[in-house]
Amino acid sequence: MRPVAVLGIGQTVIDEHWDKSLREIAGEAAFLAMQDSGVEHPDGLFVGNMLSPLIGGQNQLATFIADWVGMWRAEAVKIEAACGSGGAAFRAGVMAVASGEMESALVVGVEKMTDKAGHDVTAALATAADADYEAEQGISFVSLNALIMRRYMYEYGWQHADFAPFSINAHANAMHNPFARLHDKISVEKFEKSAMVATPINLLDASPIGDGAAAVIIVPANKVSSLPGRPRIVVAGSASATDTIAVHSRKDPLFLSAAYLSSKQAFEMAGVSRDDIDLFELHDAFSIMSALSLEACGFAERGQGPRLGLDNEIQVAGGRIPICTRGGLKARGHPVGATGMYQIVEVIQQLRGECGQTQVDGARIGMAQNIGGSGATILTHILKAE
Amino acid sequence: MRPVAVLGIGQTVIDEHWDKSLREIAGEAAFLAMQDSGVEHPDGLFVGNMLSPLIGGQNQLATFIADWVGMWRAEAVKIEAACGSGGAAFRAGVMAVASGEMESALVVGVEKMTDKAGHDVTAALATAADADYEAEQGISFVSLNALIMRRYMYEYGWQHADFAPFSINAHANAMHNPFARLHDKISVEKFEKSAMVATPINLLDASPIGDGAAAVIIVPANKVSSLPGRPRIVVAGSASATDTIAVHSRKDPLFLSAAYLSSKQAFEMAGVSRDDIDLFELHDAFSIMSALSLEACGFAERGQGPRLGLDNEIQVAGGRIPICTRGGLKARGHPVGATGMYQIVEVIQQLRGECGQTQVDGARIGMAQNIGGSGATILTHILKAE
Repeated sequence: MRPVAVLGIGQTVIDEHWDKSLREIAGEAAFLAMQDSGVEHPDGLFVGNMLSPLIGGQNQLATFIADWVGMWRAEAVKIEAACGSGGAAFRAGVMAVASGEMESALVVGVEKMTDKAGHDVTAALATAADADYEAEQGISFVSLNALIMRRYMYEYGWQHADFAPFSINAHANAMHNPFARLHDKISVEKFEKSAMVATPINLLDASPIGDGAAAVIIVPANKVSSLPGRPRIVVAGSASATDTIAVHSRKDPLFLSAAYLSSKQAFEMAGVSRDDIDLFELHDAFSIMSALSLEACGFAERGQGPRLGLDNEIQVAGGRIPICTRGGLKARGHPVGATGMYQIVEVIQQLRGECGQTQVDGARIGMAQNIGGSGATILTHILKAE
Repeated sequence: MRPVAVLGIGQTVIDEHWDKSLREIAGEAAFLAMQDSGVEHPDGLFVGNMLSPLIGGQNQLATFIADWVGMWRAEAVKIEAACGSGGAAFRAGVMAVASGEMESALVVGVEKMTDKAGHDVTAALATAADADYEAEQGISFVSLNALIMRRYMYEYGWQHADFAPFSINAHANAMHNPFARLHDKISVEKFEKSAMVATPINLLDASPIGDGAAAVIIVPANKVSSLPGRPRIVVAGSASATDTIAVHSRKDPLFLSAAYLSSKQAFEMAGVSRDDIDLFELHDAFSIMSALSLEACGFAERGQGPRLGLDNEIQVAGGRIPICTRGGLKARGHPVGATGMYQIVEVIQQLRGECGQTQVDGARIGMAQNIGGSGATILTHILKAE
């Protein structure tokens, strides 16, 4: 297959957009990406979304959005992989252009979650778990992650405060991201005193939901020139892997085997090693997930993920592997089916050098990892500035 | 891209499977397809489904099914395009193998709809329409189709009984399909006296919902030999097109422009004309849709679709363009997200010559057309026996 490049990006502020409909949010990001790319009539549309049937009463979402943005005849495909939907849609768009089936693809991740009250959203998010054997027992998505975190702390002897650097780093970086949901600095004290959600996960271990959309335009790489101040961004690696849907079915619930596998495949495809990665937008839906992702991708030893945070290795300034450079799920926000596309857009902003105070110096290779469920569907992408 | 072939098929009986879970139904069809193909470990899984989040409380369905059928590490992708989900998943699987990304793909269309009571299902099906401008007005999916049928009858001067041959043909063919939901012959009298659902659509204009799954294995064509009594079945044409999501936004609500476009593209790709098509599995969710599909694909003049039924042109025995040879949506049944895959499986049964009393003599080229919503997403596939 031929190499592909990402030519345009667009994103909306993540917020409670009660005044905007699902199509308006998606359209806002899509039109920005079209404008940024100069591609007005993409051949196809790929949409990542998890909750529009449950929260918006809308299925057939790709055609719905194609209609809204004026792509009336074009192929339109909606992909759902729970919170991994955005990354999965990006991969589908990459494949469509890489294969030669299309000359341009618009990919949009979109989610509108805040029009409904809390209980509905919690129940909707639990559809990412196994309906028969997990959700049926009354477990919510945060409580599944709490079980994983509790076991992890027990196995490896970490205290709750040891996870604070993940959230502190994310909140600090989001201060400089105008699209982020949260703009407040936090401290270890605040982290420790935050309201408990599901022991040991408190409010500052957990990412906030929100409404938002992020979009890109994908074209063949040979159609894009590298200009001064505007490098060509190619998709160097793209991989997807899965694990059991239920946590209790895994050989080792503390190892994200699909993250290990998809990152390994992405490294191989890109021809890079993990030491070449200048920044890593990981899927910190809960602080425990930052640790597990860093370990599965080989940036930390098993059980030693929190060490990277405690040793200042995850920071933009001088960190060995800067993560959540635009705030991550924790502070940029987590509009679930859109999140994977926010990660892609943010990696591109870094590779373009557009990140101001959270710019990773000389960033040339960035990685994005998007997780569906409690580690069941994991997509890893490596982007490269040329 | 390289040519691909369909090597194995599997399907479950369409029924009210209250004793089987969603994963069991999907697994049944998947294992049959694997067994039929001899491919035990496909590289990837593509799942078409519309309603599992709404009716089953299950998202991330592709990973869920990959887990169940033992594809723990493989890439798994769920695609939703309302009632066009099955065809859209098939197209994604075709692309994955044609592009060289995978050497084998399992595609499963699955739906489980009958565990919930009628009102819930009607509301769930309405998510295929525009939530803001159609469903919000209280319109159901059948009433949308009723508006189209009423207008069509007015414009072209047809009586309700003129649509009877579509349903009579479907019911007659389903008598010989052991996987069909309905096994009863109907007459014009019965058709006319059937209970009204939404004027002018009565119970015998409408397809029954149901639980079911259908699956295939796709591999590169050069990996498959043509054996005596078991021809090689290649995917000669594959195309997808869209129209506005809301019926009221269309220039002409009586013309399925996405059927016209996707069939045109599929004919071109396959290098065949419509006269070469030996059978056509069309999307007769309602009898009016049979007429509109036949017209949009060029088998009948505008407004003259019912004429094909009245002139015995749609029958297996001697018809110019046999349709619904295994019962169609009308009598085989319409487990919405699975339907597109049942169509593909049925075309393959015809091309293999396995259809007994409803076998189309010498069938060599078959077409399947799957529709999402009231014509918004339409996928056309042409399969060829070699």
